[in-house]
Amino acid sequence: MNRAVVLSIGDELISGLIQNSNSRIIASYLKSHGIPVINIVTVGDSEPEIIRALEYAKYSQAPLIIVTGGLGSTHDDITRRVVAKYFGRQLVFRPEILQKTEALYRRRGRKMPEIVRLQAYFPDRATPIPNPIGTAQGIQIEQNGQQYCFLPGVPTEMESMLKESLAGLINEMHGEPIYSRTIHVFGLTEGEIYTRLRDWIEQQSEIKVAFLPGLSDTTIRLTSQSAEGIKTCSKACQNIKSILGEFIIGYDDETLENVVANILMTKQLTLSVAESCTGGLIANRLTNVPGSSAFFKTGIVAYSNESKINILGVEPGLINEFGAVSEKVACEMARQIRKISQSSIGLSTTGIAGPTGATPQKPVGLVFIAIANAAGCQVYRFVYSRDRVSNKKLFSQAALNQLRLALSQES
Amino acid sequence: MNRAVVLSIGDELISGLIQNSNSRIIASYLKSHGIPVINIVTVGDSEPEIIRALEYAKYSQAPLIIVTGGLGSTHDDITRRVVAKYFGRQLVFRPEILQKTEALYRRRGRKMPEIVRLQAYFPDRATPIPNPIGTAQGIQIEQNGQQYCFLPGVPTEMESMLKESLAGLINEMHGEPIYSRTIHVFGLTEGEIYTRLRDWIEQQSEIKVAFLPGLSDTTIRLTSQSAEGIKTCSKACQNIKSILGEFIIGYDDETLENVVANILMTKQLTLSVAESCTGGLIANRLTNVPGSSAFFKTGIVAYSNESKINILGVEPGLINEFGAVSEKVACEMARQIRKISQSSIGLSTTGIAGPTGATPQKPVGLVFIAIANAAGCQVYRFVYSRDRVSNKKLFSQAALNQLRLALSQES
Repeated sequence: MNRAVVLSIGDELISGLIQNSNSRIIASYLKSHGIPVINIVTVGDSEPEIIRALEYAKYSQAPLIIVTGGLGSTHDDITRRVVAKYFGRQLVFRPEILQKTEALYRRRGRKMPEIVRLQAYFPDRATPIPNPIGTAQGIQIEQNGQQYCFLPGVPTEMESMLKESLAGLINEMHGEPIYSRTIHVFGLTEGEIYTRLRDWIEQQSEIKVAFLPGLSDTTIRLTSQSAEGIKTCSKACQNIKSILGEFIIGYDDETLENVVANILMTKQLTLSVAESCTGGLIANRLTNVPGSSAFFKTGIVAYSNESKINILGVEPGLINEFGAVSEKVACEMARQIRKISQSSIGLSTTGIAGPTGATPQKPVGLVFIAIANAAGCQVYRFVYSRDRVSNKKLFSQAALNQLRLALSQES
Repeated sequence: MNRAVVLSIGDELISGLIQNSNSRIIASYLKSHGIPVINIVTVGDSEPEIIRALEYAKYSQAPLIIVTGGLGSTHDDITRRVVAKYFGRQLVFRPEILQKTEALYRRRGRKMPEIVRLQAYFPDRATPIPNPIGTAQGIQIEQNGQQYCFLPGVPTEMESMLKESLAGLINEMHGEPIYSRTIHVFGLTEGEIYTRLRDWIEQQSEIKVAFLPGLSDTTIRLTSQSAEGIKTCSKACQNIKSILGEFIIGYDDETLENVVANILMTKQLTLSVAESCTGGLIANRLTNVPGSSAFFKTGIVAYSNESKINILGVEPGLINEFGAVSEKVACEMARQIRKISQSSIGLSTTGIAGPTGATPQKPVGLVFIAIANAAGCQVYRFVYSRDRVSNKKLFSQAALNQLRLALSQES
């Protein structure tokens, strides 16, 4: 069976200083070429740990093992030496590799530092893997039917070697390609989604279903390795749509703001937003969409009562009687922003993001969302229970989702 | 020796669907508590692979093993069952756990799906690890002097359990602490920072210096394991401050918005923001700071000329003569938002985030930033060359940074 193991070497990866983005790139690339990655192992620049990880990869019996990092020529690049030791091979000087490196330096008009000569030493009987954009060539070693490919850790070099220099090897190993789709759901917990889909999931044989709960949505991932993968996944999306209905906020790379933007542009509607507790996040999300100036007119972050009154024109009496966090004020904010910005729709939020600001009747996490159009105003109430920044995200997600629902009900 | 192994379980992690951010958070947190992580192993939701990874962790002899993922109650959550099998223990129903979960659903005003009952089953003699914000409790098992802690994969839940529920265990294991400080720099490239610091770095023996270039800042990380680590790191920060000066925007967990917020609150100044190209991002960043209502009064996202004229009160003649993306309009926006919101300071942005909107004189990535106070208005011009969302981030970073510089020059 085609499968691969990825081994990442580098102190910076196990110390938490940087994200291991290489392994994700490799996994995603190999998967799209029909070679699923079964393990990703990350270790520091430590001889015993590199050897332990190579053993782990060996016992996986995966035919392909991609290793990144530690092929440079500074004091902490030990992969070359450890590889020679692990496979019991001498390091041999390869003059043609040195010439290549010297030529690269000449083309760049720079003097090659002496230390870079080290990169021309290769384990005996290893195959160099060309590096189209840097000086450290990769090392390919075959042992007991497993191909070990050692690549440098610099992401751009690693990626070009994976996609260009290893293309032949990867094509040769190419398994059945894997098709996948993702479905984004908001408003149901993972358990609630599963409960609704369980009967359908149990009938599936050609498709794998996985759940990925996140803060502001749960992603359902469908994967198929059948010959009819594209069709199988599309059919499954339709089936899930018929079960989950309007809880689905988008597919694949779609974000909620993209979906809302598309509906607004299709219907040629304009939108303005009056935000209190979301503090500009809704405007920011909507204006992340390229071309959003076609529908987005004005955002007002009315963070003080003063600005709600003076800039939005909310009646002070409403705030005094019901409080700034209330249905009435939410509605008035939506109506007013719609009016003063002359937009088809006004959207507003007022709530308590926390950590302070709660009252006995109004907990942290409470939000009122109002949507005003020519026909009137609708208000929605939600309570979340996260930290300040997460509450803001959830408030903005709920607001954009209510807008999506309101827009899809409109004719 | 104190050290830890991190094991991440989830098909989505080995398929490249999502970045394994949990392992980085755990590694960084444990390192700061003197427990270096020596391996991070990622496997899919597969019984043989989970068992192989548990064996790998066992032979590492690390006293602490943190495992995340697969503790939910859907069909692909198999960790609970595999753990029971691996350690040879029965799964036992724990009614007190079910009661806790039922109470959480009641508080959220929702019905608990039957399937969630599964989360009340624990391996015999295991200790539940409380989950302060979600339903899936963790599982702690001791075997042969190694502590295995199984946590859910949802990042916010994982993180609060790591930092709160496991605080006792981690403090008990606490090794030679590793001291580290980070310094955030904006306005210099990594190469420029290194060139300025090289002589100083070469004199250091007790401190390790690493650079981590990011989109909107470069982080310098100082690490020391000496007994005088705290002092060594503080001294190094002072040295670097004397070399890099005002290019330093903050230290450690400080964000630029926190720094700006602190100066505003200390000086008892109020701020309002008029945003065009940043589309609400500056308001959003500032209102992420708890207590920001003390200084932040109003944000206006004036995304159309119409809203610049009608809501902000910019002279139409200025837009006609100089264009919406111009020094004059930036300045007028800052002056107007300051005036209509009665704030000490007005901050504005107008620019071209892209991908469209460029003219022969005005490229994508151009931004004008204006700061108005009682003394008048200053305008700054920058050009960046990224994609839309990254340009917005850089525009907001440049705007907050100019505000920081302006505020620190004021008496």
